[in-house]
Parts: sequence; C-alpha cells; structure tokens
Amino acid sequence: MIAPMKTLALFLALTAATSLVSAKIVTKPVAYEHAGVKLEGFLAYDDAKVTATAKQPGVLVIPEWWGLTDYPKGRAEQLAKLGYVAFAADMYGAGVVTSDPKKAGELAGQFYGKPLMAERARAGLEQLVKTGLVDATRVAAIGYCFGGATTQALAYSGAPLAGIVSFHGSLIPASAEAAAANKAKFLVCHGAVDPFIKPEELAAFTKSMNEGKFDYQFVSYAGAIHAFTNPKADAIAKSAGLVGGVGYNAAADKRSWAHMRSFFTEIFAVKK
Amino acid sequence: MIAPMKTLALFLALTAATSLVSAKIVTKPVAYEHAGVKLEGFLAYDDAKVTATAKQPGVLVIPEWWGLTDYPKGRAEQLAKLGYVAFAADMYGAGVVTSDPKKAGELAGQFYGKPLMAERARAGLEQLVKTGLVDATRVAAIGYCFGGATTQALAYSGAPLAGIVSFHGSLIPASAEAAAANKAKFLVCHGAVDPFIKPEELAAFTKSMNEGKFDYQFVSYAGAIHAFTNPKADAIAKSAGLVGGVGYNAAADKRSWAHMRSFFTEIFAVKK
Repeated sequence: MIAPMKTLALFLALTAATSLVSAKIVTKPVAYEHAGVKLEGFLAYDDAKVTATAKQPGVLVIPEWWGLTDYPKGRAEQLAKLGYVAFAADMYGAGVVTSDPKKAGELAGQFYGKPLMAERARAGLEQLVKTGLVDATRVAAIGYCFGGATTQALAYSGAPLAGIVSFHGSLIPASAEAAAANKAKFLVCHGAVDPFIKPEELAAFTKSMNEGKFDYQFVSYAGAIHAFTNPKADAIAKSAGLVGGVGYNAAADKRSWAHMRSFFTEIFAVKK
Repeated sequence: MIAPMKTLALFLALTAATSLVSAKIVTKPVAYEHAGVKLEGFLAYDDAKVTATAKQPGVLVIPEWWGLTDYPKGRAEQLAKLGYVAFAADMYGAGVVTSDPKKAGELAGQFYGKPLMAERARAGLEQLVKTGLVDATRVAAIGYCFGGATTQALAYSGAPLAGIVSFHGSLIPASAEAAAANKAKFLVCHGAVDPFIKPEELAAFTKSMNEGKFDYQFVSYAGAIHAFTNPKADAIAKSAGLVGGVGYNAAADKRSWAHMRSFFTEIFAVKK
C-alpha cells in the first residue's frame, strides 16, 4: 500500500502546488436585461481552474436589499477562490444601489410576494449558465437578507438548482405548489436573535418545510442579528438608524460560511 | 514561490502517507467507580498519533439511554480515527445495557433533574483526562439522546469543556446558575420532526440559551426523528415498539457528523 499511497499523495501535492501558483481570479461586469430593465451583474471565476479542467459548479449570489454593492461582489470573489464560478446578480438595474433603508425597502418591495422575484433572479441564473464555464447540473444560489428570501422564491419557482443557502434571509413559507416544483436542497442560516424575523414567521416557514417534505437544514447562530455576515453591518446600522437590529457577528459569519462549504461539498458531489 | 510551495506540499504528502500506513487504533475497557457503583468505560485512540506527537484533544462520548452498547463504542473508534482520544462513558454500571424502553426509562430516570447526571458524567471525563494522552485544555463531550441531555447537564455544572455536541438529545433549559458556570460552546443537532421533543420544550431551551448568552449553534435536520444518527435505530424501533418516533436518517447522520467535525476544528484550534 505504501507505494501507490505515496504516488497519489505526490500527485495531489504537485497538483496543489501548480494550482496555487497559477490561480488567477478573473472578475468582470456582465450586462444583461430582464423585462425591459437594463441590469449589470458581476462574474468571478478562477481562470486556471475553468480552462485547465472541466466545467465547474456555479453559484448565483443574490445581494441584500441595498443592491449590488461591493459586499456581494466580494462574496463572489471568495467563491471563485474556492473554485466555483460565481455570478452576483443585479436585481434592481445597472448601478442602482442605496444605503437608505427607506429606498431599499421600496426597491425590495417591488419583488416580495410577486412572480417578479423569482423571474428577475432567474435572469441572473441564466447569465451564469450562459458563461459556458458552468456545469449546469451543479448550480446553487446563495443570498443575503432580501437575497436570501429571493433564493427561496427562485427555488419555489422550480429553477434547476442543486441547492440554496439563505443567510439571514426573510423566510417565505412554501406553498404546496412550491413544494411540488422545488428541486433544491435548503441550508438556512439564521441569526438566533434576529429581531426582524418574528417567531410566528419562523414557525410558519418551518411548518411549510416539514409539510412540503423539503430537504432542509436550519441553523440558528447564537447572538446573531440581522446582516450578521456583513463586516460593514455595524457601520450600515449606524448610518441607517438600525443599531441593535443589524450588526456583524464574526463567529456566526465564519460558522455559516463553513456550513455553506460543507453543504456545497455534499450537493456538488459528482454521482458515481 | 514554486520551490518552497512544492517542498511544503511534498512534506505534507509524505507525512500523510506515513500516518496512513502506521495508524493503529487502540481500544480498551477501562474500569472505574463513582459513588460506589462499579463502571466500565471504553477508551479509543490512535496509537501512532499519541506517541509520535503532543497530547491530543479528548472527546467524552455519552451513550443513549440503552447504556454502553456497541453504538457509542463505534463512535469512540470513529473519533479515534480522526485523531482524538475518545472515551465512551458508562453511566449505569459495568455491563448494564438494555433494549427494553421501560428499563431504559428507569435507568435514565435516575439522572434527569438530579446532580447525579453531571457527577456521573464528570467521573467519565476524569477517566479520559487521567489517561495522560489528552490535552486537558482541549476536551469536549458528545452524547446521544439521554447522553445528549447529559452533555448539557455536564456543561451546566461548570465542567472544563471547550464544547459539547448533543445529537437528538432531550433539551434541558439552562438556569441562570448554569449559564454562569458554563464554559462550553454548544452544538445542538436536532431532528426537525423528532416527536419526543415538544415545541414548548424547544422554545424553553432556546430562550434559556439566548437569555444565558450561551455560545450555541442549533441545527434542525429535515425529516429526522429521534435517534437519527444510529444506523440500528430502525431495528431498535421495531423491537421496542417505537416505530415512527425512532429511526435512522442517513443524510442527517452524515450532515451532523460533518457539523461536529467543523465545530471541533473551531473549538480545538490552538490559540496563536
């Protein structure tokens, strides 16, 4: 057993060394359109990986209600470093971002409870697949706050997703139709003391997950409030008058990211 | 950068190859005593690891209410393969195991709500540390069903634990005293449709965790019922008349084990 073990280990070592030195993260804006609205998303991938090997799993990133700021773009880059082809979607329109919660509420309010939520996200998903870099059988969506809710709506619409990860997202209970249409496994990362999610909303969501036989994991992180993954959440909370409700939690951020990685390892595993 | 990278990678590769061929899991029964009761626990560790390098993190394993059957012993061996020094504790007395839920209820009933629960578990913890193989600053306890509840009680008693993992455990709300005494981070792995844990029990537990400022993670696994990590749970349920309440769930088993590993990586990290 020693010789083949060593050979395999050496091969892995050389491969690791090679990819470490040649990895190059490519990022670029991608213009697209949906329902007459001009959008601009953000693509990120590891050039060495997508050219040297087969198509990679793809991850759609749906922003918070602030729009496509640097935060979701940074997450797309992090995902690219993990080897995924990531596309941060634009839900609002090219360049439409805000730090005003009233404006953000209006922008996000166009989507809640309407088919447009899933449709606009689906347009982003199509851009991701259209890059030609993605294994279309291995695609997931992740999202933050409003974007977390949007990943749920996208899954409920029957989009071809292996999984979704909702980080401090609003929780949309699944209808019976949604349960029938859904193809995705769910990982829901929730701030245990998030004051924006009422206990009855949480109960209704969980009930719908159980009744709809969703394959889900729901994780509550101690001490975490809304936007707990965003390192700028404290500054945002201050300027937006949301202190106490919105804030960063480093432990919950790290843990939920680790849980997402473990989830991706499972859902992106190549069937033998 | 290429040369040192390759050197490091080769070193890692050789180390991996070496430990793969020389790993040897040692298991042995360990007799001990608590409050006049003769006990027999089960120790498991990787001989190559504990002799070749520094002391390792230790994990106490607390059995289900059936007593120290092959199931917790198997978990101790799995932990040893991961490099931990594992000790499956005996809560009842040497050789006392049962497959009769009435008897199991009586056996476990001696402990619930009494100081004896933490004290008996603490005796096991002391045996683990007494092996001399363990870094006493990096010790955790995991437990199943009754054993999950026992890990909570042990933490509430102020035992020197870095963390606990409760798998489909009964949930014991933390008192203010428990919150003040506790040193452990919590990972609670819960079957989302476990009929043995009532919603009000779950709510009381969560409330006490939040009010006591525990550092916890609570994970609900879709479709999982009581004993979801035990591959023999279906057979046990059949013979014990507990079908529908007790049963194995392979996905939840695998996921909760992965979450435990990620949790151990965090709590056992050597402070820099």
